[in-house]
Amino acid sequence: MNTPPVPDLAVAFEQQLLADIPLARAMQLRVAAWDEHGLALAAPLAPNINDKGCAFGGSLASLMTLAGWGVIVLKLRALDRECDIYVQDSTVRYLAPVWGDFVTQAQLADGESWEAFLTTLAQRGRARLRIICRVALEDGRDAATLEARFVAIDSKAAA
Amino acid sequence: MNTPPVPDLAVAFEQQLLADIPLARAMQLRVAAWDEHGLALAAPLAPNINDKGCAFGGSLASLMTLAGWGVIVLKLRALDRECDIYVQDSTVRYLAPVWGDFVTQAQLADGESWEAFLTTLAQRGRARLRIICRVALEDGRDAATLEARFVAIDSKAAA
Repeated sequence: MNTPPVPDLAVAFEQQLLADIPLARAMQLRVAAWDEHGLALAAPLAPNINDKGCAFGGSLASLMTLAGWGVIVLKLRALDRECDIYVQDSTVRYLAPVWGDFVTQAQLADGESWEAFLTTLAQRGRARLRIICRVALEDGRDAATLEARFVAIDSKAAA
Repeated sequence: MNTPPVPDLAVAFEQQLLADIPLARAMQLRVAAWDEHGLALAAPLAPNINDKGCAFGGSLASLMTLAGWGVIVLKLRALDRECDIYVQDSTVRYLAPVWGDFVTQAQLADGESWEAFLTTLAQRGRARLRIICRVALEDGRDAATLEARFVAIDSKAAA
């Protein structure tokens, strides 16, 4: 079975991340998937290892933060909306060590909807959104989770 | 006024971080101070910049997580105790953008004491500790904060 190709917008997003954020390059981050389920970012273990030989917590937190930010950036780009997106706060839980390459999946947190977010953004020029990210073990259990709040500010409204 | 020299244990800690954790090298992390106030880690902006030209949230979160972990590692090394230290969870607040090189200061969270932590560790072979880290702006306001829970497990108790 073939993995579906990553859409052009997500390919451009990956290239921009790698060009603009040196730490994303150091982590060797790539977009694994972007579809109706959200955004998946992947990273190999070797550049993200810690002193114990498993994934460094800072790498897990960084990848999940970028995935949460990216899922909003991509949604707005797909709708041709120019916005600045900022992370406001995040809570990370480290549940089990990660001994190999890893992927995080970012999606809307429970109770959030794109529709409500986009309506508020159109009305007020800014809107908040909670995103949840997970890094799963091979058996499906969570190795790490992040729940974060982001704010989107319409570039025209902010000017 | 001269900055006091960093104690040998903290110099060795910095060298170990840079040797063992590729992302710490990529961030160009260094120990700025270690004394009765806690552990201060510093990083230059350039390798930690984001697409907006300020410090990348993942770099801030990583530096604060390492400082929180490090302040416990160093305390136990100074007492000649062999322990594994793990981060369990953390909450980061991003309060203002950071436009230059940055430093984080890690110390015990309110209500925590080294004495209680060390007593529990001696009695049970493991103990938890909450640490708070701050990255300050030049005017003293917080740019980012992290509150995290760590667990220390006595290497002999775990064996």
